[in-house]
Amino acid sequence: MNTFGSILRLTTFGESHGAAIGGVIDGLPAGIEISLGKIADQTARRRPGYSTLASSRREPDEVEFLSGLMSLGADGIEPFSPGNDRAVTLGTPIGYIIRNNDARSADYEALREVYRPSHADLAWQQRYGIRDWRGGGRSSGRETAARVVAGAIARQPLESIGAAIRCKLVSVAAETDPTRFAAIIAEAARDKDSVGGIAECRVSGLPAGIGDPVFGKLQQNLASAILSIGGVKGFDYGDGFAITSLRGSEAADTIRVDNGAIRYGSNHSGGIQGGISTGGEIVFRAAFKPTPTIGKPLETINSSLENIVFENAGRHDPCIALRGVPVVEAMAALTLLDACLSAGVRFPSHNFQPGSGGI
Amino acid sequence: MNTFGSILRLTTFGESHGAAIGGVIDGLPAGIEISLGKIADQTARRRPGYSTLASSRREPDEVEFLSGLMSLGADGIEPFSPGNDRAVTLGTPIGYIIRNNDARSADYEALREVYRPSHADLAWQQRYGIRDWRGGGRSSGRETAARVVAGAIARQPLESIGAAIRCKLVSVAAETDPTRFAAIIAEAARDKDSVGGIAECRVSGLPAGIGDPVFGKLQQNLASAILSIGGVKGFDYGDGFAITSLRGSEAADTIRVDNGAIRYGSNHSGGIQGGISTGGEIVFRAAFKPTPTIGKPLETINSSLENIVFENAGRHDPCIALRGVPVVEAMAALTLLDACLSAGVRFPSHNFQPGSGGI
Amino acid sequence: MNTFGSILRLTTFGESHGAAIGGVIDGLPAGIEISLGKIADQTARRRPGYSTLASSRREPDEVEFLSGLMSLGADGIEPFSPGNDRAVTLGTPIGYIIRNNDARSADYEALREVYRPSHADLAWQQRYGIRDWRGGGRSSGRETAARVVAGAIARQPLESIGAAIRCKLVSVAAETDPTRFAAIIAEAARDKDSVGGIAECRVSGLPAGIGDPVFGKLQQNLASAILSIGGVKGFDYGDGFAITSLRGSEAADTIRVDNGAIRYGSNHSGGIQGGISTGGEIVFRAAFKPTPTIGKPLETINSSLENIVFENAGRHDPCIALRGVPVVEAMAALTLLDACLSAGVRFPSHNFQPGSGGI
Amino acid sequence: MNTFGSILRLTTFGESHGAAIGGVIDGLPAGIEISLGKIADQTARRRPGYSTLASSRREPDEVEFLSGLMSLGADGIEPFSPGNDRAVTLGTPIGYIIRNNDARSADYEALREVYRPSHADLAWQQRYGIRDWRGGGRSSGRETAARVVAGAIARQPLESIGAAIRCKLVSVAAETDPTRFAAIIAEAARDKDSVGGIAECRVSGLPAGIGDPVFGKLQQNLASAILSIGGVKGFDYGDGFAITSLRGSEAADTIRVDNGAIRYGSNHSGGIQGGISTGGEIVFRAAFKPTPTIGKPLETINSSLENIVFENAGRHDPCIALRGVPVVEAMAALTLLDACLSAGVRFPSHNFQPGSGGI
Repeated sequence: MNTFGSILRLTTFGESHGAAIGGVIDGLPAGIEISLGKIADQTARRRPGYSTLASSRREPDEVEFLSGLMSLGADGIEPFSPGNDRAVTLGTPIGYIIRNNDARSADYEALREVYRPSHADLAWQQRYGIRDWRGGGRSSGRETAARVVAGAIARQPLESIGAAIRCKLVSVAAETDPTRFAAIIAEAARDKDSVGGIAECRVSGLPAGIGDPVFGKLQQNLASAILSIGGVKGFDYGDGFAITSLRGSEAADTIRVDNGAIRYGSNHSGGIQGGISTGGEIVFRAAFKPTPTIGKPLETINSSLENIVFENAGRHDPCIALRGVPVVEAMAALTLLDACLSAGVRFPSHNFQPGSGGI
Repeated sequence: MNTFGSILRLTTFGESHGAAIGGVIDGLPAGIEISLGKIADQTARRRPGYSTLASSRREPDEVEFLSGLMSLGADGIEPFSPGNDRAVTLGTPIGYIIRNNDARSADYEALREVYRPSHADLAWQQRYGIRDWRGGGRSSGRETAARVVAGAIARQPLESIGAAIRCKLVSVAAETDPTRFAAIIAEAARDKDSVGGIAECRVSGLPAGIGDPVFGKLQQNLASAILSIGGVKGFDYGDGFAITSLRGSEAADTIRVDNGAIRYGSNHSGGIQGGISTGGEIVFRAAFKPTPTIGKPLETINSSLENIVFENAGRHDPCIALRGVPVVEAMAALTLLDACLSAGVRFPSHNFQPGSGGI
Repeated sequence: MNTFGSILRLTTFGESHGAAIGGVIDGLPAGIEISLGKIADQTARRRPGYSTLASSRREPDEVEFLSGLMSLGADGIEPFSPGNDRAVTLGTPIGYIIRNNDARSADYEALREVYRPSHADLAWQQRYGIRDWRGGGRSSGRETAARVVAGAIARQPLESIGAAIRCKLVSVAAETDPTRFAAIIAEAARDKDSVGGIAECRVSGLPAGIGDPVFGKLQQNLASAILSIGGVKGFDYGDGFAITSLRGSEAADTIRVDNGAIRYGSNHSGGIQGGISTGGEIVFRAAFKPTPTIGKPLETINSSLENIVFENAGRHDPCIALRGVPVVEAMAALTLLDACLSAGVRFPSHNFQPGSGGI
Repeated sequence: MNTFGSILRLTTFGESHGAAIGGVIDGLPAGIEISLGKIADQTARRRPGYSTLASSRREPDEVEFLSGLMSLGADGIEPFSPGNDRAVTLGTPIGYIIRNNDARSADYEALREVYRPSHADLAWQQRYGIRDWRGGGRSSGRETAARVVAGAIARQPLESIGAAIRCKLVSVAAETDPTRFAAIIAEAARDKDSVGGIAECRVSGLPAGIGDPVFGKLQQNLASAILSIGGVKGFDYGDGFAITSLRGSEAADTIRVDNGAIRYGSNHSGGIQGGISTGGEIVFRAAFKPTPTIGKPLETINSSLENIVFENAGRHDPCIALRGVPVVEAMAALTLLDACLSAGVRFPSHNFQPGSGGI
């Protein structure tokens, strides 16, 4: 299963060191204006070289769009041009690819026979009986580049109705003071080790009434989205795990009407009641484990079922949570746009009807 | 959306005070033997009257099976009889209903115009513009009775290959000593208040190689299952949120081969690597909020958009986490059986082939 | 797989001689008014005793609705009452059952070991290794009663936007004069034999722009719907198979604008171009085979793999196409409403918003 | 909706004159050996220049595989190389693209404002309000090239269990003598006109027990597959529409056991009973309309809603049924492999298990 979503569906494909990774976005309404620059902004955030704290693999992550978009010129729509920032959706699937230019497969020959600890390697082999050993293959974090492209598209119609998605790290290695995060990560890197972290995502401006009450609860689909990201070990929303310390009388989000407007006295629920958005801020968290690939030696086995010690010689991210932040936003955007479409929300769109002069 | 699952699909229906709730289980292989007694055991665990700590509504929760099963007699299969413990699946959908006998709708007239705080009432109204106000309608916890029936069926083929699912409360109102849980809940009930709790589920005996590596990760589907339960605010697995305090070198599940058998040095990953089961114990947790319906007065609004104070006069559960435990097991069973079927696992089944004398 | 549809989904369950058959309709918008009398009208059309030409099994086909509906009283919505013709959808799944009262399973003991020719019996056994032999079990035409209920609901919102679905037999045993159909069928019945027929369905008033251009073409989903009916051997639409005799210049539906309105010069395409409705009349046909169960002796085998001669002693329909007509309409209604919902069509609905006084 | 299938899913994307068309095949088991040469054979059959009777657009249809495949070398699997005929599936999605090299968009400027009769142009515009006018955009027959690639892959595991799919034209413009087809088509081309035809597909070697009995009938999924092909106006199987002329006693496929083997006395049912394969030959037909694009002048309208006469100046296929033949085979292969996987059929595969020396 390589598809996510219900009305809005993202299908991704590609191995880390194959020819390319890519995706197909289906179910986006027609006539939605998309800024190509905003897509580039998002993919830049996920890219390894973006932060000096992250791994040094150079991946320009240049996206090539193959279908589903045309460009908006002075005289209406015209054939798609990547140089024109203003694209518009056709209502057809948006196919795109990102070439794996910096693959350096030779680097990975050493991994061919190793099952790295706390990686997918061994479980994958047991599942499929065949494995692309190069850089994690399909299990590589590189697959998330395709998600970030899709999320960067999905967030644009959300923004057009006033919804904003912002995620940031709120703890690294149990430290919650952000001014100390960089030092902690740098120290882990010096030790050839890695650290975990918690990312918190806040969504403002989502209308009330989004989400389904039984299966398809908004928190259910968000949890599914977030736990589909490699390295995430937990999800909670609103007060989350901490709410278990409160009494019902403390945890209640009381409701008031002020001048005809409905207001909540608190937001323990994280903007979702009974699976449906309340119109308040959506708040949820994702717990990222420390990167499993580290420079320190670890006991493991190889494909001949021999006990070995594995010491990663190549680059690694000392804190995958850092690069996870834009991926969390991307998955949130896809989930929320899908839920909005399911609930019948309409988004501002260009309409080139017969007689309108558009075409 | 009222359907859960991919190959194995559960569709539930029913409002809390309508004629009945029920479900349809589709995708179960043919010829699987099902003990009806084991189903009754599970539904008894979820029933309000099961614990003296839970709400006093009497719901015998008598399940009537309408299709998909025949009985196993001395001479092979025969028409389904609820008195015969040994049922066998036909490979057709299993439809079943539970009548809402103790509905006492009149009790709920008072709720007709109230939007209870931290309930689905208001968000539901904003979503649908129409609402069955009686006892939460479709958003009632009663819907989970249909899930427990389905889970009680799904766990049986899992048990037949050696997998066992066990969930229990590991904290109540932040207290982790189980001998103190009853007193804490009783005290909350005396105060007309409620408490939250954390349930931990452990699954042993699941084969390695179950789950998909990108979308359809085992933890993703478990998270989706658990967050679809009303009142659950968080999910984590393995070390979960706590893993963010560890370094990569501490969190690594090293691997060894001993006498040809693959063994892990630890289980920080909770039995799942890269979305796929490792063969180790699956461990995950669900955080339940305190019951939102309490006897204490709470500020809220009514459907005329007036500010009111709502004081629940009727029964309520002082700790929904208690009754959530069998629901967590049920959703885990459905998710894991679905994942096993997707991965091609075959389960022991009766086969009445032509010429076998079966029929 | 026992579910049909994408946004609007019908799941059916039940064996012909089990406790009940039934269905769950999910995805219907909230607030849609449904006349219960119109449902009864449709189920009456499918019922065996409806025509003197059909089988004599008495099936009152009394539908019990279990969920998803409330009633519309003088003061707004109220608990569902089957005696009130005016029901309204809650947006939750509509569950319903039809008890199998006239089951007479004993009649079917003779079938226990017989694989009837041109029936599902043997292929079913090869697929599942277990079989409810009574009256065809899940393969019985009785399953279509659940579809007719769902179709009778689905056609009501379609009617509210002006769409009308009408199906009739256009040929019986190759005869196209309807005044002769009754005599042909009666003659076949006298001969303990059966005849086939072709049903033609016409849908007027469907808006332009319904259907998807690649997968999910309107004709594709209609074909899937119609071929899911037992006994149907073919589907075509517009000029159908006959169009293969025309040249492109003859088959073209020319287009004109008259006083601002778009008009087609012909309707060879049956109201669908490129998978999308044109706004013209949708026309399609279903070919029903002659009933396979007949009174004449036929060579076949039993479950001991012995060659036998089977002579059906019980009732049978001399022409299943007759009873197929309302089933075709039902499947068309489900397909078209689903396609309308996918395309974003909105249907007139009651809205009991906060402050509206509805509740 | 641009996805077809249930367990095996094909998602296609791409407009006729965009950068590329392509597809993603998901759900194929791991370790299946695929000959790249056999894929090229199939795409060659669909290509416009394949027959002298078809349109002259040169489309080399060179497929670039981006993911999901590795190559089979002397020492086991190795990175995918298009020059090595022996590829093997990874169990991950197979992404592929075909560049639109011979697009000549300028040719299509004339079509920008024309709604061609019996094309998707106008209905598309009414559906989406925006349209890629170049060569039909997404509605172009070119989309089927992506299907043929997928079908050429899907048929290989089917062949490995002995199933063979063969489709051919059985009538052109009502003529059933194949030796006269070429002359009829050439004559239509000379007249700047086009002709329709009927393709018949036969599948031998499919095991008994494939297909589902209610929704998901084998004939239902085949009909859905075939009607998803542009230009197809009808589908029937077995005796199809002609069976309506037979009596039940004539249409019965009697069954016999000969030396322990089950044999049918006839195959009126086309190898399917009750939605499930019988093990006999699957036979079905597709009716293709005459190509709507012809050189003769036709009345139509433009996007300014003016009445115009449209005369196609460019190339056109005088008989799309010709090129439809390999598309029918492709869609049949996808449908049947999907049904086999749903029914649990296992296909011969390479397994490079730990310790096997494979990797």
